Amino acid sequence: MSKKGILVVVSGFSGAGKGTLMKRLLEKYDNYALSVSATTRAPREGEEHGREYFFHTKQEFEELILQDALIEYAQYVDNYYGTPKAYVEKQLNAGTDVILEIEIQGALKVKHKLPDTLLLFVTPPSAEELKRRLVNRGTESMEVIESRLRRASEEAKGMSEYDYILVNDTVEECVDRMHQVIQSQHDKTENCRAFIEKITEEIAVFGKGE
Amino acid sequence: MSKKGILVVVSGFSGAGKGTLMKRLLEKYDNYALSVSATTRAPREGEEHGREYFFHTKQEFEELILQDALIEYAQYVDNYYGTPKAYVEKQLNAGTDVILEIEIQGALKVKHKLPDTLLLFVTPPSAEELKRRLVNRGTESMEVIESRLRRASEEAKGMSEYDYILVNDTVEECVDRMHQVIQSQHDKTENCRAFIEKITEEIAVFGKGE
Repeated sequence: MSKKGILVVVSGFSGAGKGTLMKRLLEKYDNYALSVSATTRAPREGEEHGREYFFHTKQEFEELILQDALIEYAQYVDNYYGTPKAYVEKQLNAGTDVILEIEIQGALKVKHKLPDTLLLFVTPPSAEELKRRLVNRGTESMEVIESRLRRASEEAKGMSEYDYILVNDTVEECVDRMHQVIQSQHDKTENCRAFIEKITEEIAVFGKGE
Repeated sequence: MSKKGILVVVSGFSGAGKGTLMKRLLEKYDNYALSVSATTRAPREGEEHGREYFFHTKQEFEELILQDALIEYAQYVDNYYGTPKAYVEKQLNAGTDVILEIEIQGALKVKHKLPDTLLLFVTPPSAEELKRRLVNRGTESMEVIESRLRRASEEAKGMSEYDYILVNDTVEECVDRMHQVIQSQHDKTENCRAFIEKITEEIAVFGKGE
């Protein structure tokens, strides 16, 4: 019942199908916005500023950090990646649920900064299936696949920090469950404080006999 | 993803429409069972043992208490009311979500005994609407209506103890939201412990390189 949007972080194993899920969620349901990250890495062919990423110079990015304009940021190899605060806040205040797709370290930073954040972890139904999906992509060498599995092994240790675990067996079913989990947050008691206060006061007036 | 059923307590103001909601939830969705309470009050015309209530003598009921066969019980005026444990546990173990419709004191007792219990509070959209519904029933005297409003005023103080607040504006929409909230519990991380443990172990084996 809360009118403010819910901030949702989606993480999951590489190969869990997060990209497809996000795309389908936004196609299928109206009330979502995907947060666009900021980065200092160079745009790849076909990537657009403000669509895939907000592309910044290192100096610009460090300015954003200094201005506290990012919800979280991290450095990988030589590049910065971060979540711009302004866009997210604007959407949440407009009542739109905002999805951030980030990895576990970032997810925990966001939860620490904004404790109401909903953390969702997407996983294939089994480790066997995860391996199969990674191999079937066919675009990666065995070396890359094995490095991803080692990374998945690290990521698995963080699963318990998430609020919900979503098994991606079939995309449509998983998207519906994700929608169900996110929408149910609006009815959580802590998101209904204003309503509770209002109706409690009004009933108290009636109860005394107007 | 948990295969065990979820225990759900539904409370709400008298006049919130709980009875209609429960009936519709069970008609519309498959995976629910309604818990039948035990009582020492005499059956009314048309009531059947095991359908509206399990009817017991005072001695039988006190025997149930001694045997710890009730999840919770309470005494109103001269009668006992309680929730038999065996039926609820059997349904939960079979994977069925079980609904108890009880008032706040009982709800809090159940939550204390079984902390995984999901507490839902059903409310009309406003105090004005609550009053209107109580008056429109037309079967009660103004005295009864006012006593209900005073009781509602007490009940409102307990709303914050519940996990979710469900506004019953239209029955169909409220039933769907209730279903959504209950089903999302199956994906909560604490209900996925076994899955997390299994996939973490399996990936660790792959990650080491089989």
